[in-house]
Amino acid sequence: MSKETTIFQHGTLAMLVAGLFDGTMTVKDLLEHGDSGIGTCSGLDGEMVILNGRAYTIRRDGSVEELSPETTVPFACVHFDQPASGQKLSGLSLPELEAFLMKQGMTNIFYAVKLTGRFAKMKTRTVFKQEKPYPGLNEVADQQAVFEGKDTAGSLIGYYAPGLYQGIASSGFHLHYLSSDHALGGHVLDLALEEGELSLQSFADFRLHLPVENTDFMQQAFDLDRLSEQIQQAEH
Amino acid sequence: MSKETTIFQHGTLAMLVAGLFDGTMTVKDLLEHGDSGIGTCSGLDGEMVILNGRAYTIRRDGSVEELSPETTVPFACVHFDQPASGQKLSGLSLPELEAFLMKQGMTNIFYAVKLTGRFAKMKTRTVFKQEKPYPGLNEVADQQAVFEGKDTAGSLIGYYAPGLYQGIASSGFHLHYLSSDHALGGHVLDLALEEGELSLQSFADFRLHLPVENTDFMQQAFDLDRLSEQIQQAEH
Repeated sequence: MSKETTIFQHGTLAMLVAGLFDGTMTVKDLLEHGDSGIGTCSGLDGEMVILNGRAYTIRRDGSVEELSPETTVPFACVHFDQPASGQKLSGLSLPELEAFLMKQGMTNIFYAVKLTGRFAKMKTRTVFKQEKPYPGLNEVADQQAVFEGKDTAGSLIGYYAPGLYQGIASSGFHLHYLSSDHALGGHVLDLALEEGELSLQSFADFRLHLPVENTDFMQQAFDLDRLSEQIQQAEH
Repeated sequence: MSKETTIFQHGTLAMLVAGLFDGTMTVKDLLEHGDSGIGTCSGLDGEMVILNGRAYTIRRDGSVEELSPETTVPFACVHFDQPASGQKLSGLSLPELEAFLMKQGMTNIFYAVKLTGRFAKMKTRTVFKQEKPYPGLNEVADQQAVFEGKDTAGSLIGYYAPGLYQGIASSGFHLHYLSSDHALGGHVLDLALEEGELSLQSFADFRLHLPVENTDFMQQAFDLDRLSEQIQQAEH
């Protein structure tokens, strides 16, 4: 099982929905499993972007900070970027991009999506640090900070998860953005691609690591009936 | 991530429900990821039991056959047995055993259950080899062969999966049995434990391998809405 065919995830989206925001893995340990990915920091401290082996978070005021190796995360997904022969794309909205990706045959396995280019518009949001007792993800998502940039260059990074994995991950696309100049980033809400290069990576292996030392997680009574609906509300 | 804390799964239960029975991993490759576990063979050829690094299948007539390394499997779950300080148990039915296990705190992570002992009663079933075009798992489960043994000694082996993983695995308990004399085995439907030693193993890591080379799997349109109900019918 080579590292190139493996997507590694720490924690589950169900944990975030339930308000389990405590960091349970260090950025140092996370980066041993990948050099690219997305996530969030302890306390839901911003939207995380990992590119070229460096992890960043986008804060409430829109500022981008590189994370120390000691920073902990409750949820993150990483992989080792295996640059494919990039495909040139231009003139797409977010729904058009997702429709294009779906036509590449991604249905029943995990994919990483990386799109580096220039965007006429990029609208992002970021969650921000919460204090205990933590609210659920849906209450936090209602208070998110929203940013909109024009004519920005940078990288979209994230994943496609099949419907079967809803709750473990967010089924469908889950994409974050970081501009090259670090002036803009976050969870992608909308975009207008001018032109860019797409790299798609498929995974035969999904490795999930759970925070078995975390008592709150081990004792949580998850409400699975409402989970899919709550993820739809919080992540889309 | 040590091998002792990892449960490895090839394929998903959703694939079996959809009738994707083609073997897509050899027993040889499977055993590199564990020496204990359960599964089924290509074509749904019997209930598989893996103990001490040897894989067996229980056939339609109840006979037990050791599998060659070249045998392929569509679905299996394995781990490296880490014998814990065994707990003595006696005088339990299947619901009583499951209730006892649930009290050990297993809720949100995967566990392996191994119970070696003497059973006053052991009722098992086995599915059997299908030909293409394959029916769905529920149609096959209706035709299963059922066996009932009295005063049998052997090992119960299987897993507990949290509710969140329903569809990937079978949520709750999924237990198979193989008697020491190989006279009885299969998917456990009912039992009366005389006395035995229980070994429980918890896992921080879940590794899922998908058959990305299998066109039927890659192109399958899964019916996720009915999945949980279908698994309940087929596996319990």
